Amino acid sequence: MLAVVHAPRELAATTEALRAGGQRVGLVPTMGALHAGHMSLVQAVRDAGATRVVLSVFVNPLQFGPKEDFSKYPRTLPDDLELCRAHGVDVVYAPAAEQMYPPGFQTHVEVEQLTQALEGAARPTHFRGVTTVVAKLFNATGPCVAAFGRKDYQQWRTLERMAADLDMPVQVLGCPILREPDGLAMSSRNRYLQPEHRTRATAIYAGLRGASAAFAAGERRVARLEELARAGVAAAFDSIDYVTVAGAQDLAAPGEQAAEHSVMLVAARIGGTRLIDNAILGQDCLV
Amino acid sequence: MLAVVHAPRELAATTEALRAGGQRVGLVPTMGALHAGHMSLVQAVRDAGATRVVLSVFVNPLQFGPKEDFSKYPRTLPDDLELCRAHGVDVVYAPAAEQMYPPGFQTHVEVEQLTQALEGAARPTHFRGVTTVVAKLFNATGPCVAAFGRKDYQQWRTLERMAADLDMPVQVLGCPILREPDGLAMSSRNRYLQPEHRTRATAIYAGLRGASAAFAAGERRVARLEELARAGVAAAFDSIDYVTVAGAQDLAAPGEQAAEHSVMLVAARIGGTRLIDNAILGQDCLV
Repeated sequence: MLAVVHAPRELAATTEALRAGGQRVGLVPTMGALHAGHMSLVQAVRDAGATRVVLSVFVNPLQFGPKEDFSKYPRTLPDDLELCRAHGVDVVYAPAAEQMYPPGFQTHVEVEQLTQALEGAARPTHFRGVTTVVAKLFNATGPCVAAFGRKDYQQWRTLERMAADLDMPVQVLGCPILREPDGLAMSSRNRYLQPEHRTRATAIYAGLRGASAAFAAGERRVARLEELARAGVAAAFDSIDYVTVAGAQDLAAPGEQAAEHSVMLVAARIGGTRLIDNAILGQDCLV
Repeated sequence: MLAVVHAPRELAATTEALRAGGQRVGLVPTMGALHAGHMSLVQAVRDAGATRVVLSVFVNPLQFGPKEDFSKYPRTLPDDLELCRAHGVDVVYAPAAEQMYPPGFQTHVEVEQLTQALEGAARPTHFRGVTTVVAKLFNATGPCVAAFGRKDYQQWRTLERMAADLDMPVQVLGCPILREPDGLAMSSRNRYLQPEHRTRATAIYAGLRGASAAFAAGERRVARLEELARAGVAAAFDSIDYVTVAGAQDLAAPGEQAAEHSVMLVAARIGGTRLIDNAILGQDCLV
């Protein structure tokens, strides 16, 4: 039986009752427009011991820049609830913006170094919005475990850092990217793509696969790995924000040689849509 | 039986066991050098329903400026533990700085408007340090109620705001200032005062009492109320940081007339020691 709650206090009361009854609460924060990737996160918190699952649906204005897609971001709550019911989610938390940020709201949570480069450079206030809203979701829910998709790799590492730094008693999982049959990483933003762009968008996957294969075969030169990933993306996309190797934990820029624990990250634009994807070199098998 | 714990995870495990056993945990965050004011906070969380009390003792480097008194701040843990035992505190949480801020730490919590003026103007990074450490203490403890002294008035209002904005499931109490027999607000920093300065320090109390009495008698002109509080402080202290009327909730600067819910705040320096004090006009009876 799916419960749908809207107010932060209503959620807190709901999960407090669950914990008092001995349940272990897991949280899956989302912006809705749910797909199989989100549902894999529901399974992930269960696998990590959650006996009840809260899934939040909130298109967070704080994490969108003034020229970004906040107003056109897909909102599909009836479909989302259907999918949650089918996957046995216990509570959907769908607050309104005014409930999350009432007049007088003035508090922010910031993770510093991890959020400077990559998405942080392209979207200056993005991570501050993400960490603030996720801190609120953690506080209102009181989960023992929360799951995030690794497609938003820098987000996952940032939230993991936030939870550790602030002594939040929650395990932050980063879960494998789910892909369409042709390799495109699942994303709510894929709905924006025109058919022609949808076809070309697989170039990111192809590029990551090429770099991963080279890494597996022993290639460690960063310039060469980036070149392998970049070539196809450059041809298929309108513009590239970044194609780069970074430290898997700290996202630091590498030297000339890629370390064993490196991640290859891509952000590129096609037909007005910005897509991101990544692969942990030597770990994610993309073939 | 007093338990003393040092690691964040040890505290989290301790309080989780208490909550699982049906206890309601209250928190009293302190920097140690405990006095009767702190002990009144222990009673306050009990009065608010806490059945177990955690008192934290942590001189938080993050909230001291580079030229402030971090290194000389009084550290009296054995005495503090004695006092806690005598008052039935259940857990003392006394982490080391390296446990609170291990290498790689990079997350901060900030409350914006409320922290700009007054203490925030005099001590630019102070409140960011306070909100960050108290967020950590709240997260590791999981209290249903936490108590702060109103001597640090702006701190209380800032933490109350932080908890509300971030949906922290904790009641934040602001408790009445305890005073020495001659009216000086109790403070760990009073230990710094030479006898002569200790005597002169009561001028703040006298000034607040004068302004409060005038307010009670109908005086509403802000300039006159500030003048009444300022005169004696100016004569007794080496310098004044501020003597000012502000909104009791938002700490906004008043117009020419003081509203019914106003607070008179004072910060001044004497013999190298900086003291603060305040009175809620029309509420705190100082006579």
